[in-house]
Amino acid sequence: MSDPHSLSEPAPFTADDFAERLRRAAHAAQDAGLDGILVTPGPDLLYFTGYAPVAITERITMLVIPVDSEPAMIVPRLERPDAEAAAGASSMKITDWTDGSDPYTESATLMAGTGRYAVSDSAWAMHLLGLQDRLPKSSYVSMTTALPMLRAIKDDDEIERLAAAGAAADQAYEEIVTVRFAGRSETDVGSDLADLLRQFGHSQVDFTVVGSGPNGANPHHEIGPRIIEAGDMVVLDFGGLKHGYGSDTTRTVHVGEPTAEEREVHDIVRHAQQAGFEAVRPGVECQEIDRVSRAVITEAGYGDYFIHRVGHGIGLTTHEPPYMVEGETQILHPGMCFSIEPGIYLPDRFGVRIEDIVTVVPDGGRRLNQTSHEMRIVH
Amino acid sequence: MSDPHSLSEPAPFTADDFAERLRRAAHAAQDAGLDGILVTPGPDLLYFTGYAPVAITERITMLVIPVDSEPAMIVPRLERPDAEAAAGASSMKITDWTDGSDPYTESATLMAGTGRYAVSDSAWAMHLLGLQDRLPKSSYVSMTTALPMLRAIKDDDEIERLAAAGAAADQAYEEIVTVRFAGRSETDVGSDLADLLRQFGHSQVDFTVVGSGPNGANPHHEIGPRIIEAGDMVVLDFGGLKHGYGSDTTRTVHVGEPTAEEREVHDIVRHAQQAGFEAVRPGVECQEIDRVSRAVITEAGYGDYFIHRVGHGIGLTTHEPPYMVEGETQILHPGMCFSIEPGIYLPDRFGVRIEDIVTVVPDGGRRLNQTSHEMRIVH
Repeated sequence: MSDPHSLSEPAPFTADDFAERLRRAAHAAQDAGLDGILVTPGPDLLYFTGYAPVAITERITMLVIPVDSEPAMIVPRLERPDAEAAAGASSMKITDWTDGSDPYTESATLMAGTGRYAVSDSAWAMHLLGLQDRLPKSSYVSMTTALPMLRAIKDDDEIERLAAAGAAADQAYEEIVTVRFAGRSETDVGSDLADLLRQFGHSQVDFTVVGSGPNGANPHHEIGPRIIEAGDMVVLDFGGLKHGYGSDTTRTVHVGEPTAEEREVHDIVRHAQQAGFEAVRPGVECQEIDRVSRAVITEAGYGDYFIHRVGHGIGLTTHEPPYMVEGETQILHPGMCFSIEPGIYLPDRFGVRIEDIVTVVPDGGRRLNQTSHEMRIVH
Repeated sequence: MSDPHSLSEPAPFTADDFAERLRRAAHAAQDAGLDGILVTPGPDLLYFTGYAPVAITERITMLVIPVDSEPAMIVPRLERPDAEAAAGASSMKITDWTDGSDPYTESATLMAGTGRYAVSDSAWAMHLLGLQDRLPKSSYVSMTTALPMLRAIKDDDEIERLAAAGAAADQAYEEIVTVRFAGRSETDVGSDLADLLRQFGHSQVDFTVVGSGPNGANPHHEIGPRIIEAGDMVVLDFGGLKHGYGSDTTRTVHVGEPTAEEREVHDIVRHAQQAGFEAVRPGVECQEIDRVSRAVITEAGYGDYFIHRVGHGIGLTTHEPPYMVEGETQILHPGMCFSIEPGIYLPDRFGVRIEDIVTVVPDGGRRLNQTSHEMRIVH
């Protein structure tokens, strides 16, 4: 494995890698009783072709992976040169449509009129409705419903990229705890965090949560003008993409000395995170990770203040299946990568969350974030 | 009207503005024979509520605008504080759903079981499929199909923002033609362009096309490592958002003295752009703008080399209805804002495109870009 701290680009995925993914997807679709898979721009298309259009727009681009014939992709004519240049393009027939023609009628020629298809979660409703209209006897199911695990088991090359992204986020954390917090705004500290992520090789910063004091009690608060004060708890949750793969880690720090209550809440969350991690092993249901971690918080009397699932998958995006949530009976397999991020949110007071990315290995879990879970004191 | 070059933020849209937009939308839906409108995160939700979630994810957020009752929005519980803080939130009932529950069953409670709804173009297919499953007797049509003009007619406050974004893009153009081109990469010049757009007040840069030499012949080429050379034509197409509204302008420059053929092609495109602009007036069909502009290029013998529509609407996004394309019979109304951007693309040689944003006024069109259409010589 290459040095995870390296800024150098890993070897790109090859035409063979994409061909193998396409073959595996066709088999998975067949096993699921589908006639094929419809892939639209975003992480799915990137996974199967290496192709990301300059923008995701009203002009449909769609890869069809049929169970019984060769993959085919239709693109807007003016984007065809870009599509043909993708590493995975050699594994598929590429056709195009022209402004002023009906793209759905043309796209439908790649499909079976009575087929059942899984479609990328984030495909535009406009495109799905166009296909439903042109092929009224076809039927559709979302990728997460039909084939949630299509991209969930990462191969070694992908785990290496996720580990490198995690290591870069860890480096950003070790730097951010040395900057001044008291007297500066959340926006300023968030800007420092974004700069650090980029400095350590992120090409894209997806979020830089700086939830200080009462703002930390809103788990989706990102940053705001609030001036951080001595005595504040501060939730730092940040991530993005490095070499195309995601990072996502959370630590909760304190400006100056914490109170006994703050220490207690932080300890509970720390134990909840540890319990979730220790429950990870092949064969366990995703919901079990949520239950085990949540139980620590519930038993400590804070169950009503933990208002989200314990985790989500990560890969080409920072949010994807599998989800560690009540009701998710999917079984963990080696190579799955996801967050474990319990939290306690005391309205109008403060919040605590601790998050690592974890990958499933044959005998348990392996953390892709390595920084200490101890509450760091910042200034 | 305030100074369009100002970097100061215009007065925000008020609760009354959003309430008025919601009322107008409900009327439009009723006129179209719909039971309501389903609005998901992105430009539609921003237009009706002022609310943009931190990220658009697998967790459904949906505003329902029924024709016969009050608007209602359902959001993930952990995002509720953000949604409630939006300027338009006072005009609607807000409910939430919790991780582990079924968001589609909960969302469906806001809808009529047999209703017909227009849905935001970019709503996730996963969400639409969830609603179709829970309400099998409901039906759906895309916003662009059912209500393409919902956001198309801009009011004075919106046109002021679009004019300010256009003026900022013009400033960026006047600066970029003074930088060195020859010997530098497209990526470097694109980076300069992005910096300039930000310097002149853009909060978001959507695209910075630098199509030099043969790369200019690919209309969707953005930037690449190619080193720009003396003798290159260079297509510069750039835009993004300033104060929430879009800019999008294209000029084609030349490194050193152009050939007679390059001058001729540039002149044809310039005349095509002018002809399209002069055809703009209330009551004309959108396709007429495409036809008039295209005719100039076709008559000059280059029709096969103009491979895209003439234009697209612009507002909260840089691509939206109305589209200036063959087959679009929508009538132009005062306040509509769109691009006119004919081009000629000579494969493996060079490309030329000239683009202004234009708004429809009572007696014709008004350009929101003001820089000269003459071919500028750069160095």
